[in-house]
Parts: sequence; structure tokens; C-alpha cells
Amino acid sequence: MTYTPVVNEQRFLMRHIVRIDELAAHDSFAAASPDVVDAILEGAGAFAAGEFAPLNRIGDTVGAKWTADGVRMPEGFHAAYQAYVDGGWGSLAAAPEHGGQGLPFALATAVLEDLGTANMGFSLIMMLTPGAVEALTTHGSEDQQATWLPKLVTGEWNGTMNLTEPQAGSDVGALRTTATPAGDGSWRIKGTKIFITFGDHDLTDNIVHLVLARTPDAPAGTRGISLFLVPKIRLDGAQNDVRCVSIEHKMGIHASPTCALSYGDNDDCHGWLIGPENAGMRAMFTMMNNARLNVGLQGVSVAERATQQAVAYARERVQSARAGAPTRDPVAIIEHPDVRRMLLRMKALTMGARALIYYAAGQADRAHLGDEAAQARLDLVTPLAKAYGTDVGVEVASLGVQVHGGMGFIEETGAAQHYRDARIAPIYEGTNGIQAADLVGRKLELAGGEALAALLRDIRGEAGDETQLMALADAVELVTARLGAASVDDRLSGSYPLLTMLSVLVCGWLLARQARAAAGEADMDVDFLAIKHAAARFYLDRIVPEAIGLADGATAGAEGLYAIDAGAFAA
Amino acid sequence: MTYTPVVNEQRFLMRHIVRIDELAAHDSFAAASPDVVDAILEGAGAFAAGEFAPLNRIGDTVGAKWTADGVRMPEGFHAAYQAYVDGGWGSLAAAPEHGGQGLPFALATAVLEDLGTANMGFSLIMMLTPGAVEALTTHGSEDQQATWLPKLVTGEWNGTMNLTEPQAGSDVGALRTTATPAGDGSWRIKGTKIFITFGDHDLTDNIVHLVLARTPDAPAGTRGISLFLVPKIRLDGAQNDVRCVSIEHKMGIHASPTCALSYGDNDDCHGWLIGPENAGMRAMFTMMNNARLNVGLQGVSVAERATQQAVAYARERVQSARAGAPTRDPVAIIEHPDVRRMLLRMKALTMGARALIYYAAGQADRAHLGDEAAQARLDLVTPLAKAYGTDVGVEVASLGVQVHGGMGFIEETGAAQHYRDARIAPIYEGTNGIQAADLVGRKLELAGGEALAALLRDIRGEAGDETQLMALADAVELVTARLGAASVDDRLSGSYPLLTMLSVLVCGWLLARQARAAAGEADMDVDFLAIKHAAARFYLDRIVPEAIGLADGATAGAEGLYAIDAGAFAA
Repeated sequence: MTYTPVVNEQRFLMRHIVRIDELAAHDSFAAASPDVVDAILEGAGAFAAGEFAPLNRIGDTVGAKWTADGVRMPEGFHAAYQAYVDGGWGSLAAAPEHGGQGLPFALATAVLEDLGTANMGFSLIMMLTPGAVEALTTHGSEDQQATWLPKLVTGEWNGTMNLTEPQAGSDVGALRTTATPAGDGSWRIKGTKIFITFGDHDLTDNIVHLVLARTPDAPAGTRGISLFLVPKIRLDGAQNDVRCVSIEHKMGIHASPTCALSYGDNDDCHGWLIGPENAGMRAMFTMMNNARLNVGLQGVSVAERATQQAVAYARERVQSARAGAPTRDPVAIIEHPDVRRMLLRMKALTMGARALIYYAAGQADRAHLGDEAAQARLDLVTPLAKAYGTDVGVEVASLGVQVHGGMGFIEETGAAQHYRDARIAPIYEGTNGIQAADLVGRKLELAGGEALAALLRDIRGEAGDETQLMALADAVELVTARLGAASVDDRLSGSYPLLTMLSVLVCGWLLARQARAAAGEADMDVDFLAIKHAAARFYLDRIVPEAIGLADGATAGAEGLYAIDAGAFAA
Repeated sequence: MTYTPVVNEQRFLMRHIVRIDELAAHDSFAAASPDVVDAILEGAGAFAAGEFAPLNRIGDTVGAKWTADGVRMPEGFHAAYQAYVDGGWGSLAAAPEHGGQGLPFALATAVLEDLGTANMGFSLIMMLTPGAVEALTTHGSEDQQATWLPKLVTGEWNGTMNLTEPQAGSDVGALRTTATPAGDGSWRIKGTKIFITFGDHDLTDNIVHLVLARTPDAPAGTRGISLFLVPKIRLDGAQNDVRCVSIEHKMGIHASPTCALSYGDNDDCHGWLIGPENAGMRAMFTMMNNARLNVGLQGVSVAERATQQAVAYARERVQSARAGAPTRDPVAIIEHPDVRRMLLRMKALTMGARALIYYAAGQADRAHLGDEAAQARLDLVTPLAKAYGTDVGVEVASLGVQVHGGMGFIEETGAAQHYRDARIAPIYEGTNGIQAADLVGRKLELAGGEALAALLRDIRGEAGDETQLMALADAVELVTARLGAASVDDRLSGSYPLLTMLSVLVCGWLLARQARAAAGEADMDVDFLAIKHAAARFYLDRIVPEAIGLADGATAGAEGLYAIDAGAFAA
């Protein structure tokens, strides 16, 4: 089945969460007039539903295939990708001087959401290239920008991120790929990278790999890492010495080839340094921060698809009379209370996580305009957006299977694909555990704790009569105070529950705002406003209190975790 | 990878949760001497690990295959099944007069756990046949028992349960399969059944289908359903007119063929009535109640396997220095606090759910001895065991993927299989939503509410200084009082959160008991006692408070769920 674009929802969020009118008031984003925004939301939804969604199942069943001559995408993907390039969908948020349209990142977020909802695996190529654009825009030389950006901006070429090696996953500093001067200004790259998304494929003429490597005599760890641009095809037209040696056999996102790339097997792989030597981590973080929001967004995308499918099934599947009803006539299962509970939970979680991520994207746009408070807010909510967004994706996809009953476990139904696809998102782009560590290790103390304090002030200022939301804000404050004074181990032990609490607090805040705003909207679809209100209430009345229940775990400390040796876990 | 049988854990539970010594004091279970129990636990673990576990991956990758001549199992399964029959593993709990060993169901539960941990898909055939034995033992005629039981008891033949039809899933009463008298004492069966586990295969000479069908002029709904025994091969050696027309392409448990069976295509399918006409539902519930405990057990089985695999990986995988450590040397990831949190959560959830199910099995044995209070207790905790056990399976398998990081998403690792396999268990044998409805619709009011009151008294009597457990007991009491006075819709709307709260309460109670008992055990492995204590504390300190956070959702009522039309869910 296909899906229905969520244009009303996106328009509503642009108005009340992104507050895109504030952005459009700046020269940089003047292009984001209401008409343009509307046209893009409408157009992207139609494009994703029309071109990408029909390929979702073949992407899963056939998937990307490795051949000795390179990775091949399934039938239909080439035309769909070309339509994406032709439609200018990749260039929305890039700078006009590089061929971009200078629109807010928040708007590009909405477009990427559509693509991901239509086809999560395929959308990864659309997600990663803008990150490469951002890294080159920020750290590349003028010459590099002029050479590489135009075709990356359009998507004629795609960009990849090459961090991981077999021994270097979360610990990027352990990587061993080397770069040695070739004497002509380029560097010879040698090493193996794994888990490279769209590291090879036949959708574009060229692939621009951004590769982390070590130069001779570089210091150990992350301080000795440099970033290189390594094209699949060099500018002189020669094939570079990089090869996809295999792709992974994964549980989901089969439309996305996950490549092991071998660089310099014949000592003839040339790369070009981006930014200064040993400053690669900073450049990579430029890519990663946007990518983290975008991966959180994938959780929302797959949750939306799973929800739509479950709603459609529950409205169609007739089974059993409603308990306590005057007649014994069977009803559509959406009429049964516990099925409604599941569906409304799916709606509430999806809307909540979407609001969080759009909010973060709006902060990214303000930070881009030089707003330092927005930058601090963005830094604080980025780990929440990535981790909570992807946790929501998994939970909602799982509920989607459940709503389908036995049919949910049958592959042809499609619900199972969402469940399988969703499961990668809490892992890649920094596992959710890494996000939690980032939250308690760096983000809580941003600006001496003022970033969090300001967020709590904003929430309390708006939460007024939402008593459970206020209680959760109090709980978050208490927990963060306790963890702030705690040992590193205690803090990390409580990091994940705290991350969830803070995420739910932010989502609850943004949903409470939407519930109020919905009451004041006259020009929108009545059903949309009704489900918006119902989902917000479900979140505030049922999900927010659950998060309060995490406070004990957040402050329980590390002692219980280390009371036993590692060996005892296997006893 | 294989797995390590949890013999210490099972022995500990037999002592402190099943209290098998009390059972063995009865003549009926006199065979369950400590030596025999030990030998069975040791032997079953070794058998499952040695014969079944190595087939888990081929079961997944090759799986059962449909052919025009019947379903074929993958290589290795036939010999392993024969070894199961030869070892007498199927006959443990059957009555001696039918060739069984007269041992407690709780002990058979431990054996089935081992088989499921080793190979969840395969274990389904071992799980369902004893249900057929139970149904025949309770409702079959002497002649039927003498004819069919001996080979079902050994497992030489297997039994199936045939309820579901395309239009009759949770609503069993909607089934349309017919049975008309054939004139020779048998009935002609005609209809299509779907989702029939091991409905066809090549492991045994015969298959005994227990089929729900309607006789002519039977009343509508569940009051007009009769149970028939329909063998694949009739006693005269003729092939009966039943055919497997297809098997499902499922997300997991590929070793278990899920069959669509067509009965009577040539009007020559003969079945024999079991028990009186129109009393089929009662007979089927005999099968289902045990099956519900056993499906809950599958959640524990897959959780155990996922946990063992995650622990092994986390002890082996070296990545990053420990935060705050004096050196920058990378450590095994089990040393990182959030990985420990995940692993201990997996341990705690698995142990908690296992205790709940073993406890229920022990009550089943007492009920079998005529203990009415035990029967009421069993009836009350059966929906908890099924639903919470399977929810734990899904959560733990998901955490298992997460602990593996990127490797968890690669199929070859095996963690993904557990995640896929686990997902069916909350669905079949009555969805978890049906279990929640059973809890609030029937079980809370058992004996005028005395069943629940007695459980709460037992828990409070033992929970003493566990303040969070006492708080959860109070919350459960408050919620059940509120729901007891509420409308049907309100009660059903809160049924699932309440089911989770009550399940966690029971698990917390049984784990608190184990933590105390561990302190008094001198003869057991020190590491086992250490992890037992640590996991119990994790459960009591972190998971119990989470359940308290569900109280608001349990009492939020139905109004919010029905404030919108079904159509608005699609807006």
C-alpha cells in the first residue's frame, strides 16, 4: 500500500513549532514565503507518495545487489532517483551560491520526512548527501566547493560518510585508515571502511566519499584524524582505487546498500584533505549533527507509515461485537477500546517525536542565522531528537504489527517491514546510548547548565495548567540536579532514563502548545484538529506520567550495575 | 552460536517458586524426587543445547518448505525430532495410564523452556502436542484415549489446534467450518483453517488435528461450536481428505510451518466428535490455557537466548575507554554503564517473567491436585503470564540487538532472528489485548474479587521492606477498584496498562523472594547468586517504579479514545 502525505500536520508544525514566519522575515530565508512553503509541502508529499512509496516493497524483497561490477539497485529506483534530482528536491536547503534554494532546513526536514515515510531505505541516500554538502560548505576550500558542490547539491552525485572500521565503531578514534602525501597535493588513502550507506550503487555517475583517516605521525585517538574527499571517479575521469567488496545482509532497509569499501588495494586511491590536518572530527561532526536529527526523523517517518497502515487495517478488519454493545454485530476493530488505545498511542508518539524534531530543525535554522541561544537549544535537544525519535519508530512499528494480529507477522502485509526497517535507527549515527552519554556528559552542562535551565523555563512558562507536565518538569530538574552532583558512573547509569524523561517533557510541551493552537485554528480540516487534540491529550494524560516513573531508574546509580563481575552475567 | 542451559536458575525456581517438594509430597507427583528433577533439568538442557540449538539458524535461513506432496522440514530436524521422541521428553507430564511419566507440569515447563531457547520455531510442535493430549485426556472418550493418546504422548504423532479461519480470528465464534454426520459415527468435515502451526510436515507418520466446526443447526456464535479429531491418516491407513494448500511467509519462526489447511475438498474428510456436541469451546480452552502459559514461556525462552548472546558479545567486543577511568585503554563494552544497564535489564526482565510463568505452572499442578485456590490463582495469572512473558520477549530481544550495535542488524549475527522470532508471541494464542480483556472482564472478579484480594495479601505479606513494591500493590488496588466501578469501555481502555502493572507486581514479588532466598543459599554457584541478587534489585528499584507510572493511563478512561470518529485517525 502507499501512504497519504501529512501535509496538514506539516503545515501546522511549520506555523506553531518551527514558526517559519519568523525565519522568512530574515533575508537568508526570504524565499520561504507561505506560498512557497505550501507548494513544497504539497509537492513533496505527492512526489514521495507517487514515486517512492510504490518502490518500498520491491526495495525490501529484491533490495540492492552486490556484483563484481558494483552494486545494482532494483528496478524502478533509477527513474525515481532521477525524478528526485530533476525536481530539485535535494537542493532546498543548500546555499544559493552553490546552486541551492536557500530555504530553511526545517522545510527540507519535512521533505525528507515524506521521502522516508514513502521508502525509508531509499531515503538514506537523500539524507546523507546534504550532510556532505554541509561539511564541504563549512570546511572545504573555495576550489573544492566550486568543484564538488554543484552536483552534490542537485544530487547528481551523492556523498557518503566513512567513519566505521571493524575495530572502530562508537570509538571513532580507533580508526586505522591511513593517508600519505602523494606529492601532487593529493593523498594516498589506504584502509577498509564498513557500514558505509550507499557506498556503492548505480544511481549516479559519481560518488563523493568523505573519509576519516590518519596522516603520518598523527596523534593517537580523535585528535589525529583528518577528513578526506575521495571520489569514486576522479576529475580526470579515471576510476579511483576504491572498491565495494561486499554489502551486508541486513534485517531491514534492504533498499539501502550497506557497503564494505576497500581503499587503496593497488596503492592508487587518491583523496584530498578537507580543512586542516587533524581537524577531521570537527568536520565530521558538522555532518553528524544534521544527520542525527535526520535519523531521529526516520523514526518519525517509519512510525507514520506504520500508523497509517494500522489505521487502514483497523478500519477495514471486522471482528467481534463491541463489548457491552446492545447488539452482537461484529464491528471494525478500530471500535474496540484496546485497539483504539494502540492506535492513539501510535498517533501520539509519532506526533510528539515529529514535533521534537521539527522544533530542533527550526532551532538549527535560527542557529544558522547567528542566534546563540538557538544553537545551545539545538545542541541540547539533538540527542533527544535522535534517540527518542528512533525509539518511537521502533515502538510504533511494533504496535503496528500488533494491531494487525496474525496478519502483521506475514511479510506480504508490510507491517513487518516497518518493524524490521525501524530497528536500525536507534543504532546508527551514534547509538542511542551514545546520545544519552552525550546528553549527560556534555549537553546538561552547556553554558554552565543555562541551556537546560532556559528550556525548563520555557516549558514551565507555557505548561500552566498541565499538572502532569509540570510534575515531569520537576522530576527532570530533580534528576538532573542529582546527576550533576554524581559520579561519572552514576550519571551514565541514569543517562538513558533521563534522556527519555527529558524527551517526553519536550514533546509534551510542544503537544500542549499544539492542542491550544488547534482550538484557535478555524481554517483547517475538522478531523485533523480533532485527532491533533485527541493525540495531544493521550500524550499528556498517559505518556507523560509514564516518564515520571523513570525517575527512580535515572537516579538509582551505578552501584547496582557494578556489584557483580562481568563474568557473573553469564552465570 | 549455541546457548548454555540455565540449570541453576531452573533448580532455584523449582525450590523457591514452584516449591516442587510440596508437589512431590503428593502421590500423583511422587515421581518428582529431587534426583529425578535434577536429572531432567540437566538432561533437557544438554539435549536442547546439543541437538536443537545448532539447528536454530538453518531453521531460520532455510525454514519449512511447502511442496505439492506436503511440507518438508530442513535437514537435521528429523533426527533431532526423533531424538526428542526417543528421549521421552514429550511424555513428562502426561498421565502414566496413557504412557506418560506423571511428572509436574512445572517440570515439563522447564524442559519446554530449554527447547524454546534452543530453537523457538521448532519447539512449537513440542508445545502444542501436550495441549492436544490434555484436551483428549479431559474430554475424549475412553476409546479415543486408548486409540490416540499413546502416540501423541510420546510425540510419535503430533497434535494441532484448528481455530482460526480468515473471518474468524480473535472472534472464534465466527467460524464456518462444518461437520455433518457421515452415518458411520464419523462426521464429514469441510472448511478452511489458517494459521495452523505444524499443520503439515514430515517429522511424524501422522498428524492429529483438533478442529473446531459447526454441526447442522448448531446455534450461532461460540455456543454452537464442536470439537473434532481429524487425523491426517485415518486408522484404516487411508489418507484423509485434508490438504495443506500453502504455508505463510512470515517475519520469523521460519522453522515452524504455519499452514492453511483445506478440509473436505472431495467431501471425504472424516472427523470424530470429542465430547458433546456444541461443547467445543470448553474443550478448546483446556488446550488454550496451558498453551497460554507456554506461549508466555516462549517470550522467556527467546529473551534468555537473546540475553546470552548479548552478554557474550559485550564481554568480547572491546570499544572505547571507560569514561572517567584513569587510563585510555579500551575495555569490553560490558564495562560501560549504559551497556550494563541494558544487560541487567535483560537479565531482570527475563528472570522476572520466568518466575511468573514457573509460578503459574506450579499453580496448575496444585489445581490438578484439586486445590481450588490454586485454580483461581492460576486463572488470574494466566493472562499475565501470556502477555507479560511475550512483551518481555520482544523488549529483551530488541535490547539484544541494541547491545550488538551495527552487528545486531546483520542477519548473520543472530540477534536479529531473536527480534523477529519474538514478535509473534504477543499475537498468537489470544493477542495480548485479548489477555488484557480477559483480565479485566473475567479474572478480576473471580470469586467476587477474592482471587485478586488473596494475591495482594500474599504479596504484601512477603513484601515487607520493599517500599516500591508496596507502592505498586497500592496502585494496583486503587486502579482495580476504580476499574471495577467503571463502565465496560473505561475498564477495557485501562486493561493493558493494568495488566502490565499487575504482572510487574507479581514478578517483583517473586524476585524479592528470590533475592532473600539467594542470601540463604550456601550450595549454589557464587556468580549465580550474585547475578540473581543484582537482577532482582534492578527489577525492584527500576522496573517496579516504571509500572507505577502506568496508573494514570490505566484510569484515564475511554472518553479520550472515543472523542473522535474512526475516520479522524486517518486525517
